[in-house]
Amino acid sequence: MMSDSRPEQLEVLADVDCIDLLRSHDLGRLAVVDKDARPLIFPINYFFDQGVIVFRTDPGSKLDLAVGAHVSFEIDGYDADENLGWSVLVKGVAYDITNWHGGPDAQLRFWPVRPMVPGALDYRVGIWAQEITGRRFQGEARRPKWHDSA
Amino acid sequence: MMSDSRPEQLEVLADVDCIDLLRSHDLGRLAVVDKDARPLIFPINYFFDQGVIVFRTDPGSKLDLAVGAHVSFEIDGYDADENLGWSVLVKGVAYDITNWHGGPDAQLRFWPVRPMVPGALDYRVGIWAQEITGRRFQGEARRPKWHDSA
Repeated sequence: MMSDSRPEQLEVLADVDCIDLLRSHDLGRLAVVDKDARPLIFPINYFFDQGVIVFRTDPGSKLDLAVGAHVSFEIDGYDADENLGWSVLVKGVAYDITNWHGGPDAQLRFWPVRPMVPGALDYRVGIWAQEITGRRFQGEARRPKWHDSA
Repeated sequence: MMSDSRPEQLEVLADVDCIDLLRSHDLGRLAVVDKDARPLIFPINYFFDQGVIVFRTDPGSKLDLAVGAHVSFEIDGYDADENLGWSVLVKGVAYDITNWHGGPDAQLRFWPVRPMVPGALDYRVGIWAQEITGRRFQGEARRPKWHDSA
């Protein structure tokens, strides 16, 4: 994903760090592909554990397009004081777990997803991670505003 | 995109408000579709004006997958004090403008994109917006942690 010419300040995060970041946040962005093969992005509140991201939603395109499909989920952050940035990308497959009343994964329905957005949000979707990657960087001083090509 | 059953607290943003938000921020997320028809998300710094989002990048999948394709771009924010959240989604088509030395759009190359991430980032990509939508909401008190189904 990353160019070989990147300087050392751009660091690939270890799996354990990606997981810590996913556990310690609750707002990220979901990307899905629509019927015309175009990508869409939705901000979502989530809960992550055991390699699964759970979010809540209402009926609509987010539910329709995510369920049964390959999706991506991303979180990122930037600490202005430290000038440190990071991001984590999860690739996985989404399933509608709203009515999973039996089996070993039935407890996923009760994970503590706490949406900020109003609405019933009665549907619960789980994203089973197939790949989790992350990176962290020490930010550069911001470049000049004009004619700033390298 | 949104369910009809949403309460009044979820408000569709006017175009002018979406544009103000795009102008007043410089970090968002780009979604593209990969060769296997799966979505990917990348955080990017950007500059928005005149219906075009410009970002800088190095050679790699972001450049390869965005250029010539339908992409989405999203920004969002949350004010914890006011408990107000918002997001803006831009759908558009991306072009590599790195070598656009002539014509009316040649000036796009000089727009002040100021990446935080290190690297040469010599390539410039413009996303021509075809649709800009946004929404704003007054957040609910966070729901109980467990058994929080409506």
